[in-house]
Amino acid sequence: MRTRPLKVALLGCGVVGSEVARIMTTHADDLAARIGAPVELAGVAVRRPSLVREGIPAELVTTDATALVKRGDIDVVVEVIGGIEPARTLITTAFEYGASVVSANKALLAQDGAALHAAAEEHDADLYYEAAVAGAIPLIRPLRESLAGDKVNRVLGIVNGTTNFILDKMDSTGAGYQEALDEATALGYAEADPTADVEGFDAAAKAAILAGIAFHTRVRLDDVYREGMSEVTAADFASAKEMGCTIKLLAICERAADGASVTARVHPAMIPLSHPLASVRGAYNAVFVESDAAGQLMFYGPGAGGAPTASAVLGDLVAVCRNRLNGATGPGESAYAALPVSGMGDVVTRYHISLDVADKPGVLAQVATVFAEHGVSIDTVRQQGKDGEASLVVVTHRASDASLSGTVEALRSLDTVRGVASIMRVEGE
Amino acid sequence: MRTRPLKVALLGCGVVGSEVARIMTTHADDLAARIGAPVELAGVAVRRPSLVREGIPAELVTTDATALVKRGDIDVVVEVIGGIEPARTLITTAFEYGASVVSANKALLAQDGAALHAAAEEHDADLYYEAAVAGAIPLIRPLRESLAGDKVNRVLGIVNGTTNFILDKMDSTGAGYQEALDEATALGYAEADPTADVEGFDAAAKAAILAGIAFHTRVRLDDVYREGMSEVTAADFASAKEMGCTIKLLAICERAADGASVTARVHPAMIPLSHPLASVRGAYNAVFVESDAAGQLMFYGPGAGGAPTASAVLGDLVAVCRNRLNGATGPGESAYAALPVSGMGDVVTRYHISLDVADKPGVLAQVATVFAEHGVSIDTVRQQGKDGEASLVVVTHRASDASLSGTVEALRSLDTVRGVASIMRVEGE
Repeated sequence: MRTRPLKVALLGCGVVGSEVARIMTTHADDLAARIGAPVELAGVAVRRPSLVREGIPAELVTTDATALVKRGDIDVVVEVIGGIEPARTLITTAFEYGASVVSANKALLAQDGAALHAAAEEHDADLYYEAAVAGAIPLIRPLRESLAGDKVNRVLGIVNGTTNFILDKMDSTGAGYQEALDEATALGYAEADPTADVEGFDAAAKAAILAGIAFHTRVRLDDVYREGMSEVTAADFASAKEMGCTIKLLAICERAADGASVTARVHPAMIPLSHPLASVRGAYNAVFVESDAAGQLMFYGPGAGGAPTASAVLGDLVAVCRNRLNGATGPGESAYAALPVSGMGDVVTRYHISLDVADKPGVLAQVATVFAEHGVSIDTVRQQGKDGEASLVVVTHRASDASLSGTVEALRSLDTVRGVASIMRVEGE
Repeated sequence: MRTRPLKVALLGCGVVGSEVARIMTTHADDLAARIGAPVELAGVAVRRPSLVREGIPAELVTTDATALVKRGDIDVVVEVIGGIEPARTLITTAFEYGASVVSANKALLAQDGAALHAAAEEHDADLYYEAAVAGAIPLIRPLRESLAGDKVNRVLGIVNGTTNFILDKMDSTGAGYQEALDEATALGYAEADPTADVEGFDAAAKAAILAGIAFHTRVRLDDVYREGMSEVTAADFASAKEMGCTIKLLAICERAADGASVTARVHPAMIPLSHPLASVRGAYNAVFVESDAAGQLMFYGPGAGGAPTASAVLGDLVAVCRNRLNGATGPGESAYAALPVSGMGDVVTRYHISLDVADKPGVLAQVATVFAEHGVSIDTVRQQGKDGEASLVVVTHRASDASLSGTVEALRSLDTVRGVASIMRVEGE
């Protein structure tokens, strides 16, 4: 074993960073044995040095992250600050100064992944970010390496624990959205401002990263269609149950049937109870991958939290350190396929539509005609009448989102349709 | 990209080998882009060249595997023959002649993994074998790389599809073992001689491999306690249901509570229906991993079959080829922890015991005394009487297997105990 240690600069020492530092200290011998050389925490950059950090020697703590990254003797920079700046500049500086980088920064990777990968390659360094998607769950490495000889056709994932906690609560207790959100907040699963989670921004960043890796194609955050889950109601769950389904906020990355383009999207969707993702409870994450040869795979585990995320960071740290000792780098960005990324209109799936209609003869014929005119084939219809009003639930066969949108627009203009109560996509069949 | 191709020798062209050859041909461009150089199928060694193999040029086919491996220009040998010999000699010869090796051979890896890893290291070559455990499911790589910075405490897996199909059938239909086995055979899930599957030999080989990687310790096949599932009855499933459990054949690799030793075992066990492994249906495999930092992870997918196994082989092939272009090797055997492997007597778990007893006063007191004398604490007892006979179901708290064995021996010697109908371990709680 090499005795000269590899030097690690830790940027950020919050929930994840402090766990990374703790494990680096308490498991130093194991890490050294697995890497083939000791690793040394050379410095920890923080915003507020006054906060005591147990087990981290005071002399390692600095507020000058830039100076730490520019020291010149750093082998690996671990970035767990999050957000776009100063993380982006610090990472590119790290590459310029000869370090490899391990990051947990989904927002930055989703926005600037291509530029960061290019910077890493230019300086012959590694950029690893297993922790950026679904916390502790090995996902980037399986997609990038284990499935490197396969063709991935679809990635279907629960990649946000907060929203899964809320939806699971609504499903199991019949609670409404607000009540479930309040409980998630009280238990610490949701932040004071839950927008990034419940409106799907967090999941969209992860979808962009996953789609890029799965399809060997650059997928930017702007390419990801996004719809939050704050409008999912208890009535939607009741409808889902009648169909033998539950509702999950899914990140869906798909190759088109003809293979010539890909899509990435985040929205709530019904999935059958028999689907492995349906039984993912609480704040757990799981990602379902469909590929040509492997078939259906699923990866399940905690999608967030200090220790789980630190586990993923440290797995990357070991890999990057081994590469460094080998004088090599791991697989970089693979975007050779360069498939066009289509918009939501081109997505083809099934739909569950609830309409409030007048309860009189001819309504169903009118509604069915609108579907037919837009080329959307109906699978089942269920009508329930009450006091001159009726609700009509239509489940379609597979149709493009554009056709469905056109259908819904036309339905709204019918006199006999009082309102469109909900539209939900049906996935995982 | 390098234009000179990497040369691959394929040993074996059965269900898996022919899929490997097919994908190497049909996805040649993708593989080249992902590796950074083209890969060329340089030769295919088979036993019976007369069988036509679609898409494989006749001039590549040979019956002389040894000569193929000794050609001297082979970069990677893919061994999908299975069994101990000639696979072992061919693999060591491959290393001697400068090739890296990708293998799907669980029996060989479980028996001779240490020697093969040593041979690989001696010749500065790679030995990858993702396909040896749980087919397409990425498992070796996540354990060896993603969790390299974590401490794995337990691996709990359904790693044999045949037995899971049979047990799932018994669970869902109430069928007996023989009936379920017959159906598995008719559907091609079980071989004509199902011994290797139903008696747990196949799962034991996988347990040895998983335990070795998870605990950084050499675990030989002989170290693995093995008990088949051919004696599981419909009555056992009924008992399991009453406890809110189902029965699975599990491979269990555990670190002792004090961390100073490890165990590996294969046997049928009850697990709660709420456990993620309980809902693994049909011939699917899944492996549940518990670690210090990551918490609970699960990996799910098809555990066998030509295309899924080929997916794992090709993922390894891409990795090994990349390493070769980098002039580096991937992580080799990691056995530095060298923990002692304890026998079954040291395993601590819970037990579900069904006794046939005389239905008269004092029997329960007698039985309870035997448990107490052996230090096995009882959790619940349920007694059902009928015509002077009674059945007594005892569920224990955690106890060592040695204590439980002593208890059962003493119970058998009681006059009032007519027989021990079944003993089943309870896991995953």
